[in-house]
Amino acid sequence: MTENGIMHSERALTLDTMNPNVKRVEYAVRGPIVQRAAQIEKELKEGVKKPFTEVIRANIGDCHAMGQRPITFLRQVVALCTLPELLEDNKFPEDAKSRARRILEACGGGSIGSYSMSQGIEVIRQDVARYIERRDGIPSNPDNIFLSSGASDAITTMLKLLVSGEGATRTGVMISIPQYPLYSATLADLGAVQINYYLDEGNCWSLDIAELRRSVTEARKHCVPRAICVINPGNPTGQVQSRQCIEDVIRFAAEENLFLMADEVYQDNIYAEGCKFNSFKKVLFEMGPKYSEKVELASFMSTSKCYMGECGFRGGYMEVINLDPEVKAQLIKMVSVRLCPPVTGQALLDIVMNPPQDGEPSYPNYKKERAAVLAALADKAKMAEEIFNKVPGIHCNPVQGAMYAFPRIELPQKAIEAAKEKGQAADMFYCMALLEEKGICLVPGSGFGQREGTFHFRMTILPPTEKLKIVVEKVKEFHLDFTKRYS
Amino acid sequence: MTENGIMHSERALTLDTMNPNVKRVEYAVRGPIVQRAAQIEKELKEGVKKPFTEVIRANIGDCHAMGQRPITFLRQVVALCTLPELLEDNKFPEDAKSRARRILEACGGGSIGSYSMSQGIEVIRQDVARYIERRDGIPSNPDNIFLSSGASDAITTMLKLLVSGEGATRTGVMISIPQYPLYSATLADLGAVQINYYLDEGNCWSLDIAELRRSVTEARKHCVPRAICVINPGNPTGQVQSRQCIEDVIRFAAEENLFLMADEVYQDNIYAEGCKFNSFKKVLFEMGPKYSEKVELASFMSTSKCYMGECGFRGGYMEVINLDPEVKAQLIKMVSVRLCPPVTGQALLDIVMNPPQDGEPSYPNYKKERAAVLAALADKAKMAEEIFNKVPGIHCNPVQGAMYAFPRIELPQKAIEAAKEKGQAADMFYCMALLEEKGICLVPGSGFGQREGTFHFRMTILPPTEKLKIVVEKVKEFHLDFTKRYS
Repeated sequence: MTENGIMHSERALTLDTMNPNVKRVEYAVRGPIVQRAAQIEKELKEGVKKPFTEVIRANIGDCHAMGQRPITFLRQVVALCTLPELLEDNKFPEDAKSRARRILEACGGGSIGSYSMSQGIEVIRQDVARYIERRDGIPSNPDNIFLSSGASDAITTMLKLLVSGEGATRTGVMISIPQYPLYSATLADLGAVQINYYLDEGNCWSLDIAELRRSVTEARKHCVPRAICVINPGNPTGQVQSRQCIEDVIRFAAEENLFLMADEVYQDNIYAEGCKFNSFKKVLFEMGPKYSEKVELASFMSTSKCYMGECGFRGGYMEVINLDPEVKAQLIKMVSVRLCPPVTGQALLDIVMNPPQDGEPSYPNYKKERAAVLAALADKAKMAEEIFNKVPGIHCNPVQGAMYAFPRIELPQKAIEAAKEKGQAADMFYCMALLEEKGICLVPGSGFGQREGTFHFRMTILPPTEKLKIVVEKVKEFHLDFTKRYS
Repeated sequence: MTENGIMHSERALTLDTMNPNVKRVEYAVRGPIVQRAAQIEKELKEGVKKPFTEVIRANIGDCHAMGQRPITFLRQVVALCTLPELLEDNKFPEDAKSRARRILEACGGGSIGSYSMSQGIEVIRQDVARYIERRDGIPSNPDNIFLSSGASDAITTMLKLLVSGEGATRTGVMISIPQYPLYSATLADLGAVQINYYLDEGNCWSLDIAELRRSVTEARKHCVPRAICVINPGNPTGQVQSRQCIEDVIRFAAEENLFLMADEVYQDNIYAEGCKFNSFKKVLFEMGPKYSEKVELASFMSTSKCYMGECGFRGGYMEVINLDPEVKAQLIKMVSVRLCPPVTGQALLDIVMNPPQDGEPSYPNYKKERAAVLAALADKAKMAEEIFNKVPGIHCNPVQGAMYAFPRIELPQKAIEAAKEKGQAADMFYCMALLEEKGICLVPGSGFGQREGTFHFRMTILPPTEKLKIVVEKVKEFHLDFTKRYS
C-alpha cells in the first residue's frame, strides 16, 4: 500500500486483467537468455570479473552487429533519397542517382517523408514483380505484392486474416518443429491452434509427407486446419528443401485445402553443393494449372537476410497467389489502418530488387561485395558443421543454407535432472551455463521446439571467421567439460 | 468452376472463413473515397475530361505530400547515419556529425542496419526522457520509453495488452466521438467494446465530465471499461484541451480506475491565442501523489506530425507511467516478437528529441525552418475557419491546433434521402459529389463518428496557402450549389 492509501492491486491493468493470449506468447530468440546476456555485459562494464572479456551474441541473425559491412550501393541510394541535395554531388555514381530519382518521383511531394500507399510504393512493387519474374520465369503482378515492415509484419498480417472460429472450429495452422518462434508467438497471440509437424532430423531436416498427414489428421479432431507454414531455407535448421519436398507439400496443401505460407527470407543463402533454391511459386506453376490455379500461396521476403543483412531498415514484401479477391480487399483495408511500411525500408528493398546490372558503373563493386559476403558465409557454414561433428555428443546436420547451425546435443541424465530441479528445459540449463562460463549467447532448441527427449541449440554463423572459430572451439570445450561434470 | 474442375468456393481463405473481427474494421482516412480519388487520378492521366485538372488530397495529414519541405538538419543526420563515409565530408555541419556518430556508436557493429533493442536504442530513449523532462519539468525514466513504428504501432500494442474477457466481462475502451479511426479499427480488430463519449461541439470540442460519467455508467452494464483514450490536440476536431479539462479527465480516470491513453502527437501544433499544450503527464504529476502514484498513463508521440511531418519514417515513442512491473515485462516480451522499430525512424526521432541548440552551427537555420512551418500552419488554420464560417450552412470551430478543420455542414433533407437510397451516409454522399465535381478529396464526418443527425467533414490545412485558399473557396462554391440542388 502506498502512503496515500491506494493499493497497487487497484491498478486497471495487471497480470490478472491483461490479455491472456499475450501472456501465452513466448519468443526465445530475445528471451531470458538474451536478457541475462545484457546483464552480464553490464557487469563486465562495471568491472565484475568473469572468465571472459566479452559476450558473443550468436543468438540472432543480426549480420551487421556481427561486423558484416553494408553493401555500398544500397546505402548510397538510401542516402540520396534521404538528402536529395546529394544528387548534385559528383561523388555519387549515376546508377545510384537514377535509382534515387525514380524512387523520389514515386513519393508524394518527392519526399520519402510522405506516407506511401499502404500496400507500398507502386514502382517498387513493379520492381519486386520483375525480380520475382527473373527468379522464377513466371509472371508476377505488382497488385499481388504487399510491401511490409520486415517479413515478420507480413507473416503476422497473413496469420491474422486466417484465424476464426471457436473451440473445435478454431483455425489451426501447421508449423514445422523446429520452427522460428515468430510463428508460435503469433498463433498464441491470435488464440489460434498451433499444429506441429516434425522435420526429419535424420534426413537433414527434410519434410516428410507421412508426418504431414499424421499431423493434420490428428489436428482435425480438435480444430480446423486452414494453413501450413514452411520455412525454406530453414530457420533454425539450415536445410534447403529439395524440389521433390516442395512438390509434396504443394500436393498436400491442395488435397487438404490448406493455405500455403512460404517463408523464403533466406533465398540467397544457399551454401551446400547440389543445393538450389526453388521458390514455392515457381514449383507451384511448373506443376500445372491443377495446382497453380488452385493453391493459395503467400510467400515472404525480407531485406534483413540474404547478402544485405539490413535488419534495421525493416524492409520486406509478401506476394499473394490465388487469394480470394474479396479477402484481398480486406487485406488492403487492414494494412491501411497502419498507414504504410517505413519508406526508407521500401527504398532499400527496391535496390535489392533492382541492383546494379552488368554495364552500370556500380556493378563491379556491388558484385564483389555481394560475392564476398556469401562466400564467407559458405565457408563458415562448413567450418561450424565440421568442428561440431568432431565433438563426442554433438551431431550437426550440414548447414545447407540460411544463417544457423542447429546441432543436437546429448545431455547426461544428471544434467537433465539438475535442470528439472531448477524448472528449466535441459538445453536452456545448458545454454545458461555456457553463457555464464564462456560468455557465448546461444538459443536453446526448446525455444524452437524439438522432438521430446532431444536437445539442441541454435548458433548463428555470422561472427567473422576467426571469431566464429573461437566460438565453436569454446562451445566444444564447454560441452566436454559439462558432460564430464554431470556424468 | 475452373476448367480443371476445382471450384473457387473450395478456397481455404474466403470472406466466410476469414477472421470476422477484421471484417468489422473500418478506416475512413484511407477508405472508399480515397480509392475513388486514385481512380480519378488515373482517369485524368488517361485523358478523361473532368471539371478539374488535378485531385487535391486534403484527406490525410501527409505534410510532405502537400509540399512541406523536410527540416534540413533531420535529414542530414539520417543521411550521415545511412552512409557513414559522409562523416568525412566538409559539407556537413559538425553538430549533425556529432549526433550521427553518437547514434552509430549505439548501433550494433556501428550500423543502422543492425536490429536495435526491441524497446528502442538506449541513448535515443535517454534523449526522449530528457526531452520530456524539458517539456514538463518532471523526471522521466528511459526504461519507461518504448520507441515505435509511428504512434499507431504503440497505440495498437497498448490496446492489445488491455483487452481480455468474454461477453459482459469483455474489456471496454472509451474513445472520443469524433475520434481518429485507428482507435475504432483496432478495437474492432481486437474484438473489444468501443465505448463512445461525445466531445462538446458547442464548446469548441471540449471534454465534458458529465458526458464521461454517462458514457462509462451505461457501458458498465454490458462490458468492463478498462481504459480511456484522449487525443489532444484533437484529431479530427482540432481543439486544444484546457488544463481544467485534463485535470477532470485524470480525476475521472482515477475514480473509475481506468488506464489513461493520451495521444499527444500534435503537441507542437498549437495555433490559437491563449491555447497551450499541457501534457497529461505534467498535469498528472502537478496534481500530487494522490494521482501521480495511482493513475496508469501511456502517452504517445510521433515524428509524422508537429513541424517535421516525417510520416514515411515511421518514428514514434510511448512513455508509460505507473505500469504494473509484471505487465511491463509482458510488454517488453510482446514488442520483442516484432524485433525492433525501423532504425532510421529511431534516428530521426532522436534528432527531434535533441535538436540543434542555441550556439550550435545548425541552430539558426533549424529555428528558421521550424518557425516557418508552424507560422504557415497557424495562418492557414485561421484562414480555413474564417472562410468556412462565412458560408451559410457551414459552421467551423476554431482550429486551435493539430492539422485539420472539422466543420459541421447542414445538409438538405432531400440530399439526406438521396444518400439513404444509395445506402451511403449523407456526408459520404456529399464528399463523393465534391470529389467528382471539384476534385477535392475530404473525409466525411461519419468516418470519425459524430452525434446522430449531424454531418461534418475533415479537411487538412496542409496544402500551401494559395492552394488551400482555392480549396476552401471551391468547397464553399460546391456547398452553395449542392444545397441549392437538393432544396
